[in-house]
Amino acid sequence: MASTTKISPLAPKGGFPKLPVIDGIRFSTIAAGVKYSDRTDVMLAEIAAGSAIAGVFTKSSTRSAPVLDCQSKMGRVEDDAKGFAFLVNSGNSNAFTGGIGVSAVEAITRKTADTLALPVSHIYTGSTGVIGEPLPYDKITNTLDELSQTLRADRIEDAARAIMTTDTFAKGASATCEIGGVEVSVSGIAKGSGMIAPDMATMLVYIFTDAKISQLGLQEMVSRLNEGTFNSITVDSDTSTSDSLLVAATGTSGANVEDNETFERTLGVVMKDLAHQVVRDGEGATKFVEIRVEGADNNIDARKVAMSIANSPLVKTAIAGEDPNWGRVVMAVGKSGASADRDRLSIWFGDVLVAKNGWVSPDYIEADAAAHMKNEDLLIRVDLGLGAGQSTVWTCDLTHGYIEINADYRS
Amino acid sequence: MASTTKISPLAPKGGFPKLPVIDGIRFSTIAAGVKYSDRTDVMLAEIAAGSAIAGVFTKSSTRSAPVLDCQSKMGRVEDDAKGFAFLVNSGNSNAFTGGIGVSAVEAITRKTADTLALPVSHIYTGSTGVIGEPLPYDKITNTLDELSQTLRADRIEDAARAIMTTDTFAKGASATCEIGGVEVSVSGIAKGSGMIAPDMATMLVYIFTDAKISQLGLQEMVSRLNEGTFNSITVDSDTSTSDSLLVAATGTSGANVEDNETFERTLGVVMKDLAHQVVRDGEGATKFVEIRVEGADNNIDARKVAMSIANSPLVKTAIAGEDPNWGRVVMAVGKSGASADRDRLSIWFGDVLVAKNGWVSPDYIEADAAAHMKNEDLLIRVDLGLGAGQSTVWTCDLTHGYIEINADYRS
Repeated sequence: MASTTKISPLAPKGGFPKLPVIDGIRFSTIAAGVKYSDRTDVMLAEIAAGSAIAGVFTKSSTRSAPVLDCQSKMGRVEDDAKGFAFLVNSGNSNAFTGGIGVSAVEAITRKTADTLALPVSHIYTGSTGVIGEPLPYDKITNTLDELSQTLRADRIEDAARAIMTTDTFAKGASATCEIGGVEVSVSGIAKGSGMIAPDMATMLVYIFTDAKISQLGLQEMVSRLNEGTFNSITVDSDTSTSDSLLVAATGTSGANVEDNETFERTLGVVMKDLAHQVVRDGEGATKFVEIRVEGADNNIDARKVAMSIANSPLVKTAIAGEDPNWGRVVMAVGKSGASADRDRLSIWFGDVLVAKNGWVSPDYIEADAAAHMKNEDLLIRVDLGLGAGQSTVWTCDLTHGYIEINADYRS
Repeated sequence: MASTTKISPLAPKGGFPKLPVIDGIRFSTIAAGVKYSDRTDVMLAEIAAGSAIAGVFTKSSTRSAPVLDCQSKMGRVEDDAKGFAFLVNSGNSNAFTGGIGVSAVEAITRKTADTLALPVSHIYTGSTGVIGEPLPYDKITNTLDELSQTLRADRIEDAARAIMTTDTFAKGASATCEIGGVEVSVSGIAKGSGMIAPDMATMLVYIFTDAKISQLGLQEMVSRLNEGTFNSITVDSDTSTSDSLLVAATGTSGANVEDNETFERTLGVVMKDLAHQVVRDGEGATKFVEIRVEGADNNIDARKVAMSIANSPLVKTAIAGEDPNWGRVVMAVGKSGASADRDRLSIWFGDVLVAKNGWVSPDYIEADAAAHMKNEDLLIRVDLGLGAGQSTVWTCDLTHGYIEINADYRS
């Protein structure tokens, strides 16, 4: 099915970007035949000793065996002299597979650890693809020797391709900054959020940097940045059982970025870029939409309103129809559960003030708003007129493409 | 647009049901030209003195002027010797219309009160249709004389037709019971949840009975029943700014139903029937789906899980595709926020046990579940295996029809 998929119209122009090589990180990929044929489906990332590993994961109560395993290992360093590894497969998510799923993770992490001479607790796995089917883990363990012998620092694009399921394009992003006269690089890859029957949308993100930072410092930074990036995107309000974000900091640049705001901003740029690319590959998406909410009682209320708008099927279909249907935005504000006063509410589509103080703006010309809606990248801005709370989230439209991908088949 | 709409495939067979006449209630309708031409769009229900009126309304923070006006009047009886009236228009929802909207409600309730010689506080209005446009209330007030002169007890079907917007069929239901040897009747009508640009889905429900009950007793009964009926349906998770349910009990049968469980069950039958009809007229719906959740820690958790499944675009598209995609049900359980243990979860499609104790059932034959999915009426049952909490909700599938209705136009 992947072969017939057209690249999303919202894909970044120019193809996969050139990402800086991160000293201390090497990649290899292989076609293990987990489910797909004629394509790579396993990637190994080897990470130098002394690196810090941080991560955030889906909050789903039905999360997958690999996610539970990664969470149990986070923050542990069994041997300072030993490095780490990420081992990720596509084609099978090893989710809702009971005790067999746990055994599969054990087999894969054991074999990876043995092959690379690392502690098992230093091996993080990720799986994405079909749910509820046993992962044929021997197909993966059989490839470890070859994977370990073909590691190269400049193969991150291959890694990005090996973890794709029904993504229509490989996702990569990078940024650099200078810390104390030393250049620090951040390179990351992501997959999501395509889906084929009976697969689940899964977002997997792996980011690498040569910055030097403690595990705790990196974890706090990643958790903080995650709120405004990956946790602020939504394609269809459905949360995967496998979402995982892992960040490895090798320290090989020698630049200490503990509590460093410049580095945090740089890491944030890469996380936001990858998060946006996931939305731009949303199922059936033809519009990329920023929802910016201001003037809420507090940030929590602002986020409720922003997510209520971003997840509303009526708002998303109006966007697909290029219809500046502000009534649906009012509806979404009203149902959000956040404090709102109808008569203080203002709404903009792009720069066009549509509604003001609870009614259509006297200066509103629908043709202006309709012109904005024809753009590929849209902005819907809401001012609740109550306080200083604000939130920005990103979403895409809801089109026939979404129905085709998710309904027009029989498994 | 209404003229080209095909009747929902899920509409009750046999057309509008024959509803018992309720002594003390009379109806009239007229084509006022609020927005539509060539059809009735205003209905008046005259309600005898001594009746009890109860109601529940949308919790939206951006609710319409008529809703706010009704809420302010609920439970008030200014003059025991005077009756009540419901005055409802389609074509314009008078929502998000600022101070002009309040003036429109005042003008309509004043004219209705004057014409029928009733206190203004005894007049309840409802409006459904386009949002954000001033309601041309003079078109309505101009019809009051004729409306008041054409009232008849047997015109409830006409009333049901006058309040339709893009409903594909008129909705009515009734039930009777015997209380102390006296037959008590309940007849109700509803509209929802079709929608055309730029209208909003609105659910309006009016129920009449000749039972004798206090306002407080009726209100408590209606609020209680509402949870398991209208509050347990969802088409697309979007909440209208105008949803209103009003129940009038005339007492003309002489049967006292204060705290009477038989009557409460009877009223519940009518409310559930009308609620199901709203789902059966859901936009683009081809399947009517009951979601039954058992074994939750408590009823609140059960409801969270049921609504998470019922509102999941991935579950709804799978249903549209007649795909027994239980992985998406697992996903929806996981994201619901309710307590769940993956390894205690069981899922049935109809009578077919699909997943058990966190993995696909050893006896599962996909063809059996696929056969169930071909039905028009479906059941998805989930047992969380934790406690005694349960909840049942009803929804429909998500199809190309929904996208066509809501996206394939330009306003």
